Amino acid sequence: MGKSRQDRSAMVAVAGNGLLDRRALLGRGIMVAGAMGAGSAGALTGAAAEPLAEAPWSLMPGEGTPPYGHPSRFEKAVVRTVDNPNNEPSGSRARTPHHLLRGTITPNGLHFTIMHAGIPDIDPAQHKLVIHGMVRQPLVFDLDALSRYRLVTRVGFLECGGNSAPLFSNRPVQAGVQALHGLASCAEWAGVPLATLLDEAGLAPGARWLIAEGADAPHLSRSVPLSKAMDDAMVALYQNGERIQPGQGYPMRLYLPGYEGNMNVKFLRRIQVTDRPGMTYFESKIYTDPLPDGKDTQFYFVQEVKSFITSPSPGLALEEPGVYEISGVAYSGNGRIAKVLVSADGGKSWAEAALDEPRLPKAFTRFRMAWRWDGGPAVLQSRAWDEAGNAQPTREQFVARRGETSKPASVLGFAGHHFNAITSWAVSAKGEVRHVYA
Amino acid sequence: MGKSRQDRSAMVAVAGNGLLDRRALLGRGIMVAGAMGAGSAGALTGAAAEPLAEAPWSLMPGEGTPPYGHPSRFEKAVVRTVDNPNNEPSGSRARTPHHLLRGTITPNGLHFTIMHAGIPDIDPAQHKLVIHGMVRQPLVFDLDALSRYRLVTRVGFLECGGNSAPLFSNRPVQAGVQALHGLASCAEWAGVPLATLLDEAGLAPGARWLIAEGADAPHLSRSVPLSKAMDDAMVALYQNGERIQPGQGYPMRLYLPGYEGNMNVKFLRRIQVTDRPGMTYFESKIYTDPLPDGKDTQFYFVQEVKSFITSPSPGLALEEPGVYEISGVAYSGNGRIAKVLVSADGGKSWAEAALDEPRLPKAFTRFRMAWRWDGGPAVLQSRAWDEAGNAQPTREQFVARRGETSKPASVLGFAGHHFNAITSWAVSAKGEVRHVYA
Repeated sequence: MGKSRQDRSAMVAVAGNGLLDRRALLGRGIMVAGAMGAGSAGALTGAAAEPLAEAPWSLMPGEGTPPYGHPSRFEKAVVRTVDNPNNEPSGSRARTPHHLLRGTITPNGLHFTIMHAGIPDIDPAQHKLVIHGMVRQPLVFDLDALSRYRLVTRVGFLECGGNSAPLFSNRPVQAGVQALHGLASCAEWAGVPLATLLDEAGLAPGARWLIAEGADAPHLSRSVPLSKAMDDAMVALYQNGERIQPGQGYPMRLYLPGYEGNMNVKFLRRIQVTDRPGMTYFESKIYTDPLPDGKDTQFYFVQEVKSFITSPSPGLALEEPGVYEISGVAYSGNGRIAKVLVSADGGKSWAEAALDEPRLPKAFTRFRMAWRWDGGPAVLQSRAWDEAGNAQPTREQFVARRGETSKPASVLGFAGHHFNAITSWAVSAKGEVRHVYA
Repeated sequence: MGKSRQDRSAMVAVAGNGLLDRRALLGRGIMVAGAMGAGSAGALTGAAAEPLAEAPWSLMPGEGTPPYGHPSRFEKAVVRTVDNPNNEPSGSRARTPHHLLRGTITPNGLHFTIMHAGIPDIDPAQHKLVIHGMVRQPLVFDLDALSRYRLVTRVGFLECGGNSAPLFSNRPVQAGVQALHGLASCAEWAGVPLATLLDEAGLAPGARWLIAEGADAPHLSRSVPLSKAMDDAMVALYQNGERIQPGQGYPMRLYLPGYEGNMNVKFLRRIQVTDRPGMTYFESKIYTDPLPDGKDTQFYFVQEVKSFITSPSPGLALEEPGVYEISGVAYSGNGRIAKVLVSADGGKSWAEAALDEPRLPKAFTRFRMAWRWDGGPAVLQSRAWDEAGNAQPTREQFVARRGETSKPASVLGFAGHHFNAITSWAVSAKGEVRHVYA
């Protein structure tokens, strides 16, 4: 085997501290030593054949095929962190391991969940959805009835309003992207447009809101403006092709693209059309925050433009100086991502990242940037803009508007919601990555 | 509870035997009887409240949250059919249950697989990929090295060349969409563009092909034109966000968008650049078919334009006359789906189906069509066109070009490849659905 080759060609700097043109060749292949014939279809011989020595699994038949596949046993660390593993009488949060994933789809088994009283074991044959209140005729639907409607498909993110809440702390938090941003995920949803069902029930004059209620024990309920319900809301039945999983609201949930996670009511059993919001517990007490100016964030529906770097990130150390790809996700409840800028010098200079297509509205967009780490200190940041013209705020801008807290991060459960400021990862001379404010 | 309501409004026929305008309201809600107050945010009372009676799971805390989520126990039938469940020394096929899925993404656990000698248990830390042959410098990559390259994301279908092979039979096959078309699936893939790696190795003058080889015991190998390798091929590391599963080639596979499944070599360990194809076992003997004119289909790479209806389909009986949604998937190895037509009268008349966006190239596109079943006989068909102008062939056209066989369907394993003609489902007066030729 030869030695590591030098990074070569197309190494055009586009911003400070090593950000490179997106066409940079990140040469990492190791040369195979010895003479390699250029013949066609010949067998490898001598030193060149060494990398192709037969591994044990190449010399024997493999395992059988299971009816439902699962990841390799070597990927057992790729799981959600569950903060209430013994299911004690309390809430439970399971966070997506963004640092170990790529692409934009979150597998169903790794989609974040928040449960307020555990995951109910619902028999779909007995579950019903009622639409009533200010409608011409109240209606009830079972799963079979819903399955005969027009089912539409849409890729979109979900994010808990409390995602990234530790970052309200006035001190950096020693945690990684899973702990800090793991309450956001993205999937392909299929379901019945809610407008279809409301049209069938017939809205009464004066109807302005609906109150959606779940069938789990807390009967979580939230108020939704009818304008959203008639726009792009759906009663979702499928997630990434299969029936939504129990933690996601099986057999059906409300899906409100771009809106705060808990409004996407799981185990949906009731939609009551009204002329005013219900002022429910979950919107009056839980998912509302005081603001520095004395007002509060009640009915703060939209998850605003946001991005974070998933690699490098804490726990993913850089082994040696050289070229790396900076990768992350960006999303906005207001539409498509328009652009993402990346900095390697804590915001002093920026370069525009490449965006994987398709950039779908209200969905994860993957961004990428080539970076040569010279072994010195670096602070990595990303900043996103959406097609509505919104910019992800700097931390300074965000704190000025929303405030921060001196409470330790460990007790920050409800320190605040809708945190969407820039996240900074510092790289040390040893290649370790940690969260900082910069 | 009231009685079933009549289907209403927007019932504009667009073709024979009940095909309806896509805006047809498929009214299936059941009226709730009794007076329902139109007040805001009030509780349901009396008869109206009956559908909202508390189910057992609404009255007690639920289960804990697992680190890796799974479907509901009520969905245990939503699995792949495995034709070699005891893993006897032979091949093994696991087929996607299309009739039970919606949307366009196939969950990783339900993606089809074909294994020629079981699924190897590969330690990713020991696996290497060698690029050699007609290159300036042979290179070897481990997983860490590959993970530092530019990783791109792409949604795309995979289809076994042998998918739908039973339909080469000259008699209709009493089987459903899973048995007939279950060797096609669609996922989001993330990986390193193969062109990047070949550029780094440096192609020697005269290089025209590559031979890709897997690390499982059969060392399945296939020849791929360099033009494809330099176009949109990738070394895929992730599938729907997580590492590709063992049955899909963990820790890495070749991904050739739109090309015959087995060319997308799993457990990829070697790419040998050559001036001619390898004429390997899997391309010379297995995945090649004689044609009526005496030629054969060797190096028949592209999976051509195709569609099939997933619902209704065999096993999904219609309960009663009324309005249903006809739904299915369409795809082409030549690019985007341009349009899909649907017929309910065996091809006498056709109407254009609605297509869910985004329509991505070489990926599943979901199509939909409203249909009023009047209780009489019907034959449902779909026919797709791709953006390159190719039309899915009728059965008559396909048989004229490719032939058919009188062997029984049960022994049709290698009766033929690349079947892409129209599939017909007949609906009986009882609402049962079965495969027919029409």
